[in-house]
Formats: sequence, structure tokens, C-alpha cells
Amino acid sequence: MALILLKITKTAHYTPSKVISNDDLAQIMDTNDEWISSRTGIKRRHVVTDEDTTDLVVNVAEDLLKQSQVDPEDINFIVVATASASEAVPTAAACVQKAIGAKNAFVFDLNAACSGFIYGLSVVRGLFANPNYNKGILIGAEVLSKYTDWEDRTTAVLFGDGAGGVLLEKNAEPGEMFLGEDLLSMGDLGDKITMAGTQNNSPFSAGATKDNPGKYVTMDGRAVYTFATRNVPKSINRALEQANLTADDVDLFVLHQANARIVEVIAKKLHQPIEKFPMNISEYGNTSAASVPILLDELNAAGKIKPGSVIALAGFGGGLTLGSEIIRF
Amino acid sequence: MALILLKITKTAHYTPSKVISNDDLAQIMDTNDEWISSRTGIKRRHVVTDEDTTDLVVNVAEDLLKQSQVDPEDINFIVVATASASEAVPTAAACVQKAIGAKNAFVFDLNAACSGFIYGLSVVRGLFANPNYNKGILIGAEVLSKYTDWEDRTTAVLFGDGAGGVLLEKNAEPGEMFLGEDLLSMGDLGDKITMAGTQNNSPFSAGATKDNPGKYVTMDGRAVYTFATRNVPKSINRALEQANLTADDVDLFVLHQANARIVEVIAKKLHQPIEKFPMNISEYGNTSAASVPILLDELNAAGKIKPGSVIALAGFGGGLTLGSEIIRF
Repeated sequence: MALILLKITKTAHYTPSKVISNDDLAQIMDTNDEWISSRTGIKRRHVVTDEDTTDLVVNVAEDLLKQSQVDPEDINFIVVATASASEAVPTAAACVQKAIGAKNAFVFDLNAACSGFIYGLSVVRGLFANPNYNKGILIGAEVLSKYTDWEDRTTAVLFGDGAGGVLLEKNAEPGEMFLGEDLLSMGDLGDKITMAGTQNNSPFSAGATKDNPGKYVTMDGRAVYTFATRNVPKSINRALEQANLTADDVDLFVLHQANARIVEVIAKKLHQPIEKFPMNISEYGNTSAASVPILLDELNAAGKIKPGSVIALAGFGGGLTLGSEIIRF
Repeated sequence: MALILLKITKTAHYTPSKVISNDDLAQIMDTNDEWISSRTGIKRRHVVTDEDTTDLVVNVAEDLLKQSQVDPEDINFIVVATASASEAVPTAAACVQKAIGAKNAFVFDLNAACSGFIYGLSVVRGLFANPNYNKGILIGAEVLSKYTDWEDRTTAVLFGDGAGGVLLEKNAEPGEMFLGEDLLSMGDLGDKITMAGTQNNSPFSAGATKDNPGKYVTMDGRAVYTFATRNVPKSINRALEQANLTADDVDLFVLHQANARIVEVIAKKLHQPIEKFPMNISEYGNTSAASVPILLDELNAAGKIKPGSVIALAGFGGGLTLGSEIIRF
């Protein structure tokens, strides 16, 4: 890829304080801890009570700025990857701009569902090709609890709310961070995950014509499992090939946390030890576009990412979409 | 800006066939043609009956491909700028991918409200900095009729539905198309336009906490008018400065069609004849992210854009956001 001297200089995450255990869920629906944790690896999830997506995103942005001492007026752009913004207008990114006083920035939201943060990395990297842009914020955030059908035990147990993000700076350090990428979508499988359709009630409408005019998530879990386990290893390998690396060269695989079983199969297909695939799904469930940056920040804060570490990031989900980025810290 | 040999090679647009005149609106609310047209320049608007955003976007994408003879499998990415997709998941872009068989593409939606197409141009230009990407589709599309409060005569008369888009190709012709850009958002004015908040009904929610949990558009028309007339001329001038051009060098100013009066004030502030500011708002109303590409395609189809024409594109609206791109056809 074309050389842009770009680095992720700070990472941050924020999750709501309210924690719902599998046992808590068993009180309101016909499920149990053994069933959930054996099939998904999920033990708990964080959900909002009086917060919404904007609050989560603002917390992450404030943390990034606090860590970095960057003047908010030096931020050139703010991108929020989300499928569940508080409002369509103003965007989550616009709300962040207001909250942190990034008055010289341009801002927008990006929606590639669970692959949003990965696609966002490609987008912000491209924006930095413009020599006028030197600092940017990318945050992945979701409040899926408001789109969860809490009467559907097959999906309600899976999701959680949260946000994670990164500050990116140009020429902060020598060396190129982005080594290879592979982004691929499969829109022909779009109906395997659906969410948040809008009923048209205008006086000119002939009525709802869409498959899912309701707001709740629907998912064909088996199809998504097959999609992910079949395609994510290939995507990571294509991105590694572009970077002239192999899976053996990767220090950590930071994958979208949809299901611990999916991560295990991907590790096996890449012939890599499961220890190279850190997971936090037991704590957060599937947080969609937020899962990769939350995990990235936890690893960074724990000192598990060192200068020079090679990280393979991968997302997959609604769209259906998938993508991988190989980066060197 | 860094040199990328990129061109808009095709343009297309699609609007629903159902046309609602001001007189039609006067039948269902307390308004009249004189009031609407004198204040806004709007005479008619196109609204969907049994279509939704996805249908509009697919029509535009199919038209672009038909015109170009490009193999859909050669498309590297599809980006849809919209605040009103049919569903959050799958995205409008994913639905396009499915419809046109662009099976090697990655796809996502981008939301910068009425500035979405302009911001999208910056984003797709950045994506093309990756040498692996050679062809991409950018479409702006909205179905605002489903988010319009048809009992609020101050906003219901303003909006229309539609979609417009472009095919971009690298190295199609010598010369750089993108000459200068200025993107700036003002999130502190975010509450001047709101749309499509989501009520959180989860069992863990403390209830709606947002200002506009309902789905309908709200707008402070006076504040938006002031914002646009004050800031858009400055934005265009900053983009022109970057391109080492002046307003006199611009052949056509293709502005977001929010209100004919706003366009007239901008023309005056730029000291340019109104003839250089083509408008189609009388026919379509405000179509948000779709307005600039619809107008661009109409001008292109009418032969009013010639090879070498310098066009200033500008968007402004929800966020609040604004942005300008100076391009040479």
C-alpha cells in the first residue's frame, strides 16, 4: 500500500456500568448459564440504563484526548463506526465534536455493522492521504440492547453495549503502521442478519414493503457461523499476503467477539495457538463495531501490545461484511 | 492534495414517480403554493409509495453500470451516503452489492446528513489511495418522506425522496479531478436539525433520555439559514484557495438544494451571477444527501458539464455539517 506514516497513538474504551449475567437473563427468559456459555463463551454483558450510544462515544473520545494531551482543535476528523447511533441526525460523530470541542473537525458516522471499525480503519487511513489531515479519531460504538428483542432467547443472550476507539496521528513516529488489508462484503447474504428497519407511515406510502420493518435484530446464527469460519481465515491470509507476512509472524489476532467458538475455529484454520487469540467475549458479549477496539484497548492497557507488535485485526457480521487489517504498533 | 489520477466517469440519478405538488399538500395541511414557493423555491417533490431507500439506490447503481459497461465484479467498493437507509443492517450499500452482483466489493453506508455526498467524495478519494482499488461507486440517497412529520407544515413541505450517484475510476483519463476540498462540521449546532432517534425499551433501560426519541425530522429553519449563508461561501472559498483558483474560475456551482433563497445569498456573497448556480429544487425539494448528485447528473445529461469544466460542489445540513469539493471534469 502507498506509504503514509501513520500510527495509532492512543486507545480507549468505555462500557456501561450495568452488568447482566447469564443468571440474570435466566430470570426473564427461558435460558441458563450453561446453555449460553457453552455455545458462545458469553458470561456477562454490559447494557445501558440511562445512557445511549452518544454517551459511550463521548466517554471514549474524552479518554483519548486526556491520555494524549492533543488539543481538540487540532483534530481534523472524527469518524464513528456504528449501526445504532442515538439519532440519525445529528450523527454520533457530531455529538462527539460538540462534547470535546473539536471545532475544526469534520465528522461522520460509518455503518458496516460488526465490521465497522475495520472498515473505518481503511477509511481514515485514506483520509490521511490528504496532506492537510494529521490527527483523527475513530470510534466503534453500539447500543444493541435497544435493538434486541428481549423475548427472543436465541438473540437476546448474545449482545452487549460498549464503545472503543483510537487516536491516529500522522508522522508521530517513523514507520508505517498499516501493512495489509482485505475488505470484502457479501451482500447476497444480507438477510442473515437484519436490524432497525423503518416503517413508512407517510400518507403517500403503500405500506411497509420490507422484510423487517421492525427495529429488532434477527439473525440466522448457523449461516453466520458458517460465513465467519469459512471466510475470515481466508481474509486474514489475503491481508497477510499483501503485507508479505504469514500467520506465524502475527503476535496477536484481535478478532470481532461474536462467539468464542468462531474464534477457536479460525485459530485452528490458521494453524495458530489459541493463546494468540485474546478474547473478552465472556465479559461483554457481542458489541458489534465496538468489540475490536474494546479488546485492542484492553490488550494495550495490559501491556500485551509492544512497540513493533504485529496485530491482525478482523471484523465480520451484518451486511454480510468482513475485513482484516494487519498493523504494526 | 496528493495526486491520484481519478475521474468521475459516469453519473446517474433516480427519483420515485409519484409527484406531490404544493397544491396537493394544501389538500392535507394548512399551506399553499405561494407560501411554499416564495420562501423555498419548491413547487413539487417526488415521494415513494411502495419503494424504500434501497430501491432508489439500486436503480442508480444499475444505471451507472449500464452506461459504463464496467463488469460489476471489477467494482472495489460501494459507498452509500444516507441518513435514511431502509434498514441499519444490511446497509443500503450491501443491498446494492447484492442487486448488481458486485461480488468482489466491500460496502458501507456513510452518514453526514445533507453533506453526505460531499463527505463521501473525500472518503472514496482516500480509499483510492490504496493502489489495489481502481473502481468505486458513491451514491447519495434519502427517503425523508418516512421521517417527515406530515402534520408539521413547517417541515413537511421541504423534503423529497431521491438518489444520485457516480462511478469513479482510477487512471481512466490523464489529469487529477479533485483540486481542493474543505470539510467542516459544527456539532455545537447539532440540535438545529434532528431525525430518527430510537426509543430504548429494553428491560434495563431507565427510559428515553434523548431530546428527540421520535423518528421525525425537526428543524430550526432560521438557524440553518444563517449557518448556511454565513459558512458555505467561506467553505467554497477555502476549497478554491487550496485549488489555487477563485470563484471566477468556476464554471458551475452545484450546491445542496435546501432552499433557493440560500443558494441566491451564497451566489451574491461569492460575487457570482446566479446563472452559474443551477437549481432543481422546484422539482425535488430538499433530498438531503441525494441533492448534489441528482443535480450533477441532470447537468451532465444535459451537456452542461464539458470536459475540463470546473465544478464547485457544496453540501450543508444536519450535524451541522458543511463541505465543498472543487473538481475538474
